[in-house]
Amino acid sequence: MNQIPFLTIAKDFKAIFLDSYGVIKNYKGIIDGVKETIDFLKDNGIIFRILTNDASRSQEQQSVNFLKLGLEIEPSEIITSGMMAKQFLQHKILDGKIAYLGTENSAQYILQSGLEHVAVRDVNFDEIDEISAFVFLDDEGFDWNKDINKTVNILNKKNIPVIVANSDKLYPVSKKDVSIATGGIAQLVESILNKKFIHFGKPDSQMFMYAFDQINQLGNFSKNEVLMVGDTLHTDILGGNKFGVKTLLVLSGNTRADNADLQITSTGIIPDYICPSVGF
Amino acid sequence: MNQIPFLTIAKDFKAIFLDSYGVIKNYKGIIDGVKETIDFLKDNGIIFRILTNDASRSQEQQSVNFLKLGLEIEPSEIITSGMMAKQFLQHKILDGKIAYLGTENSAQYILQSGLEHVAVRDVNFDEIDEISAFVFLDDEGFDWNKDINKTVNILNKKNIPVIVANSDKLYPVSKKDVSIATGGIAQLVESILNKKFIHFGKPDSQMFMYAFDQINQLGNFSKNEVLMVGDTLHTDILGGNKFGVKTLLVLSGNTRADNADLQITSTGIIPDYICPSVGF
Amino acid sequence: MNQIPFLTIAKDFKAIFLDSYGVIKNYKGIIDGVKETIDFLKDNGIIFRILTNDASRSQEQQSVNFLKLGLEIEPSEIITSGMMAKQFLQHKILDGKIAYLGTENSAQYILQSGLEHVAVRDVNFDEIDEISAFVFLDDEGFDWNKDINKTVNILNKKNIPVIVANSDKLYPVSKKDVSIATGGIAQLVESILNKKFIHFGKPDSQMFMYAFDQINQLGNFSKNEVLMVGDTLHTDILGGNKFGVKTLLVLSGNTRADNADLQITSTGIIPDYICPSVGF
Amino acid sequence: MNQIPFLTIAKDFKAIFLDSYGVIKNYKGIIDGVKETIDFLKDNGIIFRILTNDASRSQEQQSVNFLKLGLEIEPSEIITSGMMAKQFLQHKILDGKIAYLGTENSAQYILQSGLEHVAVRDVNFDEIDEISAFVFLDDEGFDWNKDINKTVNILNKKNIPVIVANSDKLYPVSKKDVSIATGGIAQLVESILNKKFIHFGKPDSQMFMYAFDQINQLGNFSKNEVLMVGDTLHTDILGGNKFGVKTLLVLSGNTRADNADLQITSTGIIPDYICPSVGF
Repeated sequence: MNQIPFLTIAKDFKAIFLDSYGVIKNYKGIIDGVKETIDFLKDNGIIFRILTNDASRSQEQQSVNFLKLGLEIEPSEIITSGMMAKQFLQHKILDGKIAYLGTENSAQYILQSGLEHVAVRDVNFDEIDEISAFVFLDDEGFDWNKDINKTVNILNKKNIPVIVANSDKLYPVSKKDVSIATGGIAQLVESILNKKFIHFGKPDSQMFMYAFDQINQLGNFSKNEVLMVGDTLHTDILGGNKFGVKTLLVLSGNTRADNADLQITSTGIIPDYICPSVGF
Repeated sequence: MNQIPFLTIAKDFKAIFLDSYGVIKNYKGIIDGVKETIDFLKDNGIIFRILTNDASRSQEQQSVNFLKLGLEIEPSEIITSGMMAKQFLQHKILDGKIAYLGTENSAQYILQSGLEHVAVRDVNFDEIDEISAFVFLDDEGFDWNKDINKTVNILNKKNIPVIVANSDKLYPVSKKDVSIATGGIAQLVESILNKKFIHFGKPDSQMFMYAFDQINQLGNFSKNEVLMVGDTLHTDILGGNKFGVKTLLVLSGNTRADNADLQITSTGIIPDYICPSVGF
Repeated sequence: MNQIPFLTIAKDFKAIFLDSYGVIKNYKGIIDGVKETIDFLKDNGIIFRILTNDASRSQEQQSVNFLKLGLEIEPSEIITSGMMAKQFLQHKILDGKIAYLGTENSAQYILQSGLEHVAVRDVNFDEIDEISAFVFLDDEGFDWNKDINKTVNILNKKNIPVIVANSDKLYPVSKKDVSIATGGIAQLVESILNKKFIHFGKPDSQMFMYAFDQINQLGNFSKNEVLMVGDTLHTDILGGNKFGVKTLLVLSGNTRADNADLQITSTGIIPDYICPSVGF
Repeated sequence: MNQIPFLTIAKDFKAIFLDSYGVIKNYKGIIDGVKETIDFLKDNGIIFRILTNDASRSQEQQSVNFLKLGLEIEPSEIITSGMMAKQFLQHKILDGKIAYLGTENSAQYILQSGLEHVAVRDVNFDEIDEISAFVFLDDEGFDWNKDINKTVNILNKKNIPVIVANSDKLYPVSKKDVSIATGGIAQLVESILNKKFIHFGKPDSQMFMYAFDQINQLGNFSKNEVLMVGDTLHTDILGGNKFGVKTLLVLSGNTRADNADLQITSTGIIPDYICPSVGF
C-alpha cells in the first residue's frame, strides 16, 4: 500500500465519512491542514459526514466545539453513536424509567424519549421494578467504585435491556495518556455478569447505514462512491470494510506510522488506502 | 412475558421478518400451521420476508425447496447471509482470484462477481499472490483435515480480506443431532490466526437493513411497524432488538419451552413476545 | 449425584481442603454446624487446610478473624492466593520498585520481599524506569477512576511483569449483593491493554500443590486421599478436578440448590459429590 | 535484554527444563549445536528435563526418536502433557469407558488405566450411558468432519469430564507450514458447546511441578536454581514465569529474531533471558 496525498484519493469520491478524534482533531486542536481539506471538499461538492463514537455531546454541542476550534461543521453533518442509542430507546423502550451511568449532559440528549431517567446513584432498590432499561452513557459523572458496583447489583437483580452508547474501550487525553471509555466499563460489567449488552458505535453498521441513508436523501450515491476515513483499524476500518465502502487509514491518531503495517498484518483488518493525515 | 397466539400479535404489524429453520421449517418439513399463517399474512396485506443465515443455497433454490414442501414463497421474499457476502465482494474485491472453502453450489451464487474463484484444494502456493480474498462459504464440499489446515497456511502467508458467508456455529440435522456450521469453522481459523474476519448474517444489522430498505420501496414502513420472529436468541432476537424492531421468540426450534426463561435471564437477550410457534 | 451428609463422605479421606467464604463462613459469620465439623476432623485425625482466594489479609490476620467468630484455625492451616503472589515476587523480581493497586494492609504482607513498594497514586512518571513489577492486590484503598486509569497508562508505557494476587471477579457483601473483586479490575485492564497478566488463586494448580506439598511433610498422602470442598464451580471444583483430587460442591454459597444441576450441566464442571453444606 | 551465549547463562543453574520442538529439534532434525550443549550439561552435572506438549508419543517412543536423530535422552528425562492427562484419568475416572479422539498409539499410552477405551468413530449412541470421560488425544487417526461432529453430539448428550491431552493450537510441519493441533480442535468444540474442558500441558503449572518434584528426589533444588528454556512465549515462558523459575527464550523456533521484541511488548510475557538458540 503506497501512501498517496489525501486529496488525490478523496477527489475521486462523491461522499466522505470521517472519524473525528485522531482524524479531524486531537488533544491540541484541529489537526494541521484539515481546515483546508474541508474547504476543498465543500468547494468541490464532495459531501462529508463526521461519524464519531463520542456519545457524551450532542450534534449541536459538537458543532459548537468545532467552531470554537475554527472549523465550520453543521450539526446535521455530525453523526454520533449516542444518536443510535437514542433511536433504539425511542423504538424499543416504551414505558418505565431508564437508569443510566454517565453525565447529566449526555443523559439529556440521549434520553429525551418522554420517559423518566434516573442516575445509578439515585436508583432505589425498592423501586427497581420500575426500571425498564439501563444505559451506559459516558465515563464521567459518577463514582466509579460505588456506582459501577451498584450497576452490577442492579443488573444482577433485574433482567432488562442494557444499551452501551459508545463501544470504545479507550480514548486519548493527551499525546501519551489514555483514559478508559464507556465501552471498557460496560465490557467489565458484561464479563462479570456474563450477559450480552447492545452496543452502539463503529464498527457496527448502524452509523454507516444512517449516514448513507441521509446522504441518499440529497442525491443518488452508491457504496462505490463513498470513502470512510479513520485512524483506528478496529472501529473505522473494520466497520467501513464490512459496510462495503472503500476505507482509508490516516496515521495522525491511534495507528502510528511505525507500526501500521504490523497492525494491519496482525489483525487482518486491511484498509484500501493509507495517508499520513487528512491534512496532507 | 405471557404467551399469546402468534396471529394475535402479528396482525398489529405491517411487516414481518421471519427466520427460516426452526420457525418456518425443521428437519421434518414445514412446521404445523405455518402454511395457514403465511396465507393469513398474504390475505391481510402483511408483508413478510424470510431472513436466513443459510448461505449454501440461493434465493431461487430456497424458493424451490419451499415449494417442494408445499409453501409458496417468492425468491424476492428470501434474504440470505450469502447475498450480503456477495454484495461485499462486488463492492470491495475488484481484481485477483477469490479462494473459497465450501461447495461449488454456494460458490456459484455468491462468487458471481466477474472474478475467477478457486476452491482451497486447488490453490497453488506458487500462485498465492493472485489470491485477493478468501470466503468461508459453507461446511461441505471439502476435506476438513486437509483443507482447513491448508486454509490456515494460505491465510498465514497472505494478508487478505476474509469473508464468512454464514456466522452460525451450529445447525440441526435431526431432532437431537447438530452439525458444525461455517461460522464454527471460521471461528476456529480466526482464533488460531488471531485475526478478525468479516462475518455476515444475523445478529449483524446488514440483513435487517437490506430487508427494511427493500420493503420501503413498496410502501412507507417505520421500525415500529416491523416484527422480527426467530427461534434463536443470539441471532434473531439480539439482531432484531439492536436493529430497533419488536422481536418475537418462537419455541419451535433452538430455544425450548422448558428453558426459554432461563436462557433469556442468563443471556440478557430479551424478546418483546414469546409464542409456542408461528403456527399457533 | 445424590446428596449425602458431609461427614459420611469426609470420613473416608485423610486430608480435606476447604474454601473459606461460602463454605466455612458467610456475611453473617461461621456457617451453622461448621464448628462441629472442624472438631470432628480434628478428633478423627483428618488434616484440613483452608484454601482461599482472599489476598487482602495474611494467614495470621485470617486466623485472628476466625477466632473472633469462634473458630480455632492455625495460621499454618490457611493458604491464600496472596502467598502465591508473594512467593512469585521473591523468586522473580530481584530489583527495582514494585507498584501496586490495593490497600496498604495487603501490600505489607505480600510485598515484604526486601524491595521498595509504591502505591499507584504515588507513582511518579519521571521515575517510571525504576518500576520493575506491578501487582493487583485487592479492590480497596484507591480511587477507582484515577488510579485504574493511571494503571493503564503506567502499563502502557512500561512492559513489566504484572501479577494478580486474587483472580476472583466478584465477592459477596451481603445475602444479595456482590462487589467487583481484584480479578475483575485486573481483567478490565488486561482486556484494554491486550496483555497477559500472571494470575494467582484457584482454579490454578499452585495453591493445591502448595497445600499438598505441605501436608506431605507431615505424612504420606496420595491424591486419592484428599478431598477439595468448595462452593464455586469455576474455582474450587475446576481447580480440584484438574489437580486430580476428589471434589465436593456445597450449596451454602455461590451455587444455589435450585440451579446447581443446571450450572453443572451448562459449564461441564462436574464435582464428585454434592452436599447442602459442610455443617450437615 | 542482551543476547548472551546459552552456556554462559546455563552454567549458573543447577537444573534446566527444555521444550522439545523449536528448542532441541525442528522439522529438519536436531538443531545445530544442541548435541554439544546436552553433553556440556551432562559433563557439568547440570540436570535437565524435556517438557513437551506433544502427547502423541510416550516417553519411551520420544527417547527412541531422539536416539534415531543422534541424541541420547533417557525416557525418564522426558515429561509429556499426555503423562499429566494419564495421571488425571487414573485418579479421577474410576469406572465406565473412556471415549477418545486421536490415534490408537496415543490412546495406548495415555489410557492404560484399567478402563476400556473406545474411539469416537466406534461410539454407539445406544451405549452412551457407559461413557464416563472423553479425551482429546491428538489431531490424527480420525475423520475430521464425521468424528468432530460426532464428538459435539456425544458431549451435547452426556455431561462428562473432558480432558485435552495437549493444549497447543498449532504445530509446525515444515519451515513455513503449520497444522492445527489437538488444542485447536478441542477449543472449537469447547466454544461451540460453551463448556470448560480440562487442559493439560504448558503454560499450566502441572508439568513444571512434576519435573520439579522429580528432580527434588535426586537432590535439593530451589526454584532459583532452575531455568526454563523455550521458543514460545504463551506456553514455555508464561508457564515458567508463573511457576516462579527464571525463563530463557530461544529464537530457533516459534518466535523469530525479527519480531521477538515486538511480541514480548505486545503480549506482556517477558523472559529473563534471550538467546539465538540452545546451540550457541
